[in-house]
Parts: sequence; C-alpha cells; structure tokens
Amino acid sequence: MKFSIQKDRLSAGIQDVLKAVSSRTTIPILTGIKIHASDEGITLTGSDSDISIESFIPSEEGDVSIATIEETGGVVLNARFFNEIVRKLPASTIEFETSDSFQAIIRSGHAEFSLNGQDADEYPHLPQIDDQNAFKLPADLVKTLIRQTVFAVSTSETRPILTGVNWKIENGTLICTATDSHRLALRKTTADGLPEGEYNVVIPGKSLTELSKILDDSNEPVEIVMTENQVLFRSKHVLFFSRLLDGNYPDTSRLIPDEHKTKIDLNTKEYLQAVDRASLLAREGRNNVVKMSSDAGTVEISSNSPEIGKVTEQVSSLSSEGEELKISFSAKYMMDALKAIEGTEIEIQFTGAMRPFVIRPLHDDSTLQLILPVRTY
Amino acid sequence: MKFSIQKDRLSAGIQDVLKAVSSRTTIPILTGIKIHASDEGITLTGSDSDISIESFIPSEEGDVSIATIEETGGVVLNARFFNEIVRKLPASTIEFETSDSFQAIIRSGHAEFSLNGQDADEYPHLPQIDDQNAFKLPADLVKTLIRQTVFAVSTSETRPILTGVNWKIENGTLICTATDSHRLALRKTTADGLPEGEYNVVIPGKSLTELSKILDDSNEPVEIVMTENQVLFRSKHVLFFSRLLDGNYPDTSRLIPDEHKTKIDLNTKEYLQAVDRASLLAREGRNNVVKMSSDAGTVEISSNSPEIGKVTEQVSSLSSEGEELKISFSAKYMMDALKAIEGTEIEIQFTGAMRPFVIRPLHDDSTLQLILPVRTY
Repeated sequence: MKFSIQKDRLSAGIQDVLKAVSSRTTIPILTGIKIHASDEGITLTGSDSDISIESFIPSEEGDVSIATIEETGGVVLNARFFNEIVRKLPASTIEFETSDSFQAIIRSGHAEFSLNGQDADEYPHLPQIDDQNAFKLPADLVKTLIRQTVFAVSTSETRPILTGVNWKIENGTLICTATDSHRLALRKTTADGLPEGEYNVVIPGKSLTELSKILDDSNEPVEIVMTENQVLFRSKHVLFFSRLLDGNYPDTSRLIPDEHKTKIDLNTKEYLQAVDRASLLAREGRNNVVKMSSDAGTVEISSNSPEIGKVTEQVSSLSSEGEELKISFSAKYMMDALKAIEGTEIEIQFTGAMRPFVIRPLHDDSTLQLILPVRTY
Repeated sequence: MKFSIQKDRLSAGIQDVLKAVSSRTTIPILTGIKIHASDEGITLTGSDSDISIESFIPSEEGDVSIATIEETGGVVLNARFFNEIVRKLPASTIEFETSDSFQAIIRSGHAEFSLNGQDADEYPHLPQIDDQNAFKLPADLVKTLIRQTVFAVSTSETRPILTGVNWKIENGTLICTATDSHRLALRKTTADGLPEGEYNVVIPGKSLTELSKILDDSNEPVEIVMTENQVLFRSKHVLFFSRLLDGNYPDTSRLIPDEHKTKIDLNTKEYLQAVDRASLLAREGRNNVVKMSSDAGTVEISSNSPEIGKVTEQVSSLSSEGEELKISFSAKYMMDALKAIEGTEIEIQFTGAMRPFVIRPLHDDSTLQLILPVRTY
C-alpha cells in the first residue's frame, strides 16, 4: 500500500471513525483503525463491535485531487497514536507506505514516523446489510430526534432494553421513545421519505449519541437501513452501523394520561431558569427535588435544604385552568425535558400530585415529555 | 447589614476571592466567603490560610452607583452556594439583607433565597502588613515572571522549599528562580520601581499560579510588600496575601555552566514542534525521553518505542559551532522550557552529553532555562 493524501482530510476521517474505537475493548485489533487504499480512495474503519464506523476519502472530489493512490492494500494501526501523529504532522500533505511486515511509514515535511501495524485481514468484517429497504431523512432532523429523546434512556442495566431508544415506524409516522421508568421523552415525525412498511427497533442510546456527533447540521439526506439486529445510517462519506437491542420495548402509550385536571401554560425560558435556581439548593437534599404550587396566574417554585437554606420564586403563567395544585418533582428531569423542547412556550398538564404529568410545546403535538412526580407532601 | 448591588460586580468579586477558598479545609468557616458592608462599599474575603484574597467593590465608581449600603455589617456564607446563586439570579440588581441569626436573604427579580450564614467575627483576621516597603511592578510583567518560572517548581514535598519560586532582589534586579532539581527556570528583570533594598523570599508555586489568574494583562501597577513570612500583592481592588516558605533556597548559580562546547541556534517554533512530535512515541517509553544529535547545519530529533514504532525528524539549525553532540532529554521539560521562552529564535549551549544544558532566547539574557540530560547512550 502506498498513497499520499491531504492531511486535514485524513485527520477528519480519523476523527469520525475514532468515535467507535474504545481503548477498553477485549479484542486487541479493535484498538486500531483499519486503513484501506483502493483505486477510488481511502477507507478508514473503527469499531467496538457494538458500533462500527466507516469513513471514505475519495481520491478526487470534482476536479480537486485529495489522495494519490500508488499501490492499493491495507493495514491496521493503533488508533490513538495514528490520530495524534496525523494531527501533529508538519506539512499539509502526508505520504503513507506499508512494508510486508505491516510496518507503516508516515512522512510529512522533514518528519518520518515508522509505526508497527497489524494485518488488515485480521480485522473483523462489517455487517453485510441489504439496503433494499433504505429510507432517507435529513441529517438535522435525525440529530433533533436524537437530542429530544436520548437523554431519557436508562443508565442502569437492570432492564437493558430501556438503555435504548425505541424507533417505531407505522403508517408513515416515526415515533422515537425513551424512558428510564421515571420519565419519558417522545418525538414523532411524519417527514417525507419515511417508508410505508412497519419497523420497530431499539437503538442503544450510546450509539445515537455518537451518531449525533458525526452528523452535521445540514439537511443532507441520511440513508437509514433497519434489519433484524443492525441499523445502518449512511451519510455522504460515512457509514455508521449499530447493533440493535434484543427484546420487546414496553408499551408506553398507556403511561401517557389522556385527560388532565390542571393545565398551565408557561414561558419556557422563565420557567426553566426558575427551576434551575431552585435546584441549586435541591441538589444537596434527596434526589434534587423541587416543589411547585399553582395558583390563579402564578406558579411558585420552591426548594428547601435545612442545612443550607431555602428558595422561593414566582413565575407568571400565561394561562391556567383547572384545580389548584401542589406537586414535587426532580429538577433535573424537568430541566432535561424543558431543554429538549423546541418552542418558547409550553403547556403542562397535571392529573394530580401523584400522577405522571405531561409537558408539550404550545400548539405542537410532535414532542411530549412525561415526568413522574415525587411524594413529599 | 443591608445593601443592594449590581449583580455583575458582586459576581466578579466572588470569582476573585473564590480562588483562595478550598472545600478541603480543616477549618469549617474557611469554606465560606466573608461579606462585609461599610459605607464605602462591600468587601469580600476568601482564604485557605495559605492564600487569602480580599476584593473590594466600591459603592460608587466615578459617577456610577455600584452598590447602595443601607446598613453596615458582615456575615459569612458558604462560598460554593453563594457563588452559584449569585451567578444564576434573574435580575441585574441584587438585594442583600441579614438577620440577627446570621440568616441572609438574597432577592433578585421574583426569586428569594434565604441562606444560613455564620458570624463574620468568627472569620480569621487577615495578616496585618506594614506597607512601608512597598514597591510597584506592572501587572503584565508580574504575570510573565510567574509564567516563565512557576512550571519548574517541584511537585514533590521531599524538599518543600523547591515547591516555591525564589524571588530575590539585589542591586535593583529581581531574579525569579524555580527548580525541581531536574531542570531550572530563571527570569531576571531590572524594571523601574524595584526597591534599593535586598529581599530574598520563596513564594509557594500554587500561590503564584492563583495570583496569575487574578491579575489582568494590563500594565496597571501591582503593589508588592514582602515581609518575613508573608507577601502581599495589591492591585486596584484586590489584595492577595500568600504565606512564604520557610528555609533557605539553595544557591542555584553554581549549577549554571559558564562555558560551552557546542552552541546551536534554532527557530523556536520549528524545534518545539519537532520535539512535540517525537514525544508522541516517547510518552510510552520511560520518562518521555527523546534523543537529539547535532551535525553541521542540522539537528536530528528521534524517539523509539519498541512496541509502537519510531520517529526521526531533521530541523535545520540557524547556526551551530563546536563539537558534534548526541544527547537525550525529557521532551516534556524541553517543551515546558521552549513555551516559557519569549522569542522566535533560541540558542542552546551544551557542555557534554551528561552535563546540564542551557536554553536562552537569542540576544536576550533575561531568561534562562536549564535542563539535566538523561543517560541513554
């Protein structure tokens, strides 16, 4: 294998695949990045067996030459060193060459690195995915779907299925749901491009978080292929594979109340900041719990930590209807939910101090955040 | 005590004194910040008994009102909570009031915090320093003196005196020296404002690092008072006290060779980057050691880690004279030294592979960096 390549393109490709590489793997070759040169360009691969990422750097883009391949082939190099070395090379062009003994020579300016590599044939093969059933969504929508749900997955392995986000497609609607059984985040979309067929998969939260870092905030299409145990996201030059979680995702629709006794509309930012301030003192107490009581026209947020002190704050409601209410909840869950909501105004629907309550952006049914209250009164 | 104050100014004052507050103190009241209101303004104090910082916020600055004092007095509040609360308050003005039981009420917008405080009379008194012998240096010079030396202090408590920087004034010259016995950093200045008298103190490295964060990059004068066991730095509204280290600082002048067998001039940035690249592979080996060999017109930097690989790089020297040389040294020490040097070109003077060598900016005698080599050949 022998090629020369633009340093910043190689470095960007390494950054992408590095997100799948873990130093704590039990399979030694997975601490490396596979570099493969074909006549079309350079393919980089990183994997921790749960997530695999492949980044392709074409030799030419339009009329611009990015890489010159003199000899095709492959090698696996330690990911951490390869990344640090490439980033710190002096010149804008890098020459790369391997010997029979999987030794890689990297030259740039007056610097020459010789790195011990491994046989590319020993590197695990990526899943073969038949992309007959692919569908496309814009990259920025995929990022938003992830951002609005993934924070609510469970971090405990007690019920592994809850560490993932349920992506369910039915009748041209995609519903993404995450819950850790104390709160739930749901985002729906009927975007163009969704398939007719039915899909129901659970994607690990960690995979979605990493995918989100790789996608850019454009409306470039991302091709999505769901199989029985893998999902593939394909953007322009990057393939992102994740295994799916085994098992059935619980039916969460019955958790969501369909009626309410109190409904309060609030300015999102004002309310978020008041909860944030109250949480300053709540953090010391048990579970970061703040209290909220509603009255005609105002809600009061308060918190009390006997050793430190107490805080109370009034927030004017935009409108309120139904019964007066006193309720306690986790300030963290409330702040997570409010940050995930797009919209300057929200409505909160309560059915009682001990029943789950629902937060939605005003006049928008695509997002729903549900929180279970805490008993304190 | 009762006053109102601009939020930004109170918050900036808290940031300053917070640098002296440690959560790991054995004296409980020192986890707090002392707030004292006089007719002139508000004084904040933080201390970990080694460092004490006092920040003064005047009630008026020119014609602008910053604080309105209704009732003088004092209280001590938990530093972490007080800081977080003030930063997150909603309005640009804060009302502050204390009760007889050291309870503080903080109001801003619709938020009201009540914090449990402690008696300000219980707070330790700051050292009384007679500022008869004060002298003045510009703030940016003080920051540079610190930056160019403090990194070389010892982090080990085996010889406590080496954890400080020696500030020695003699014949109108200030010499700052730090060494951990493997390398030494020295910076001299004959700036206007230095006193006639002789001073010789050792200031803890940690104190200087914190001081450096508080001073701004202006040439505003900083007043310095050295006593037997304390040093005081006074800028516009901030007093910074540090205890001094006990004991005699070793005589380091005899460590610095006054002749050389090899002298090489180099471009600082090119050489630094080559050492940085070589250190990528050196980090895995013992002590981060790189090798350097000099030849007419070039130096070669190299490093070798049997498991990972090797690297070599040529750097053109601007000029070289004397014997050829092969030497090994810590890449970290070299990078620290080069980063501390101001100047695009350096000269390195060697007296042999096992003798300390000296790095100086070209045509500038005010800075000197000395490094002990490592035996590898």
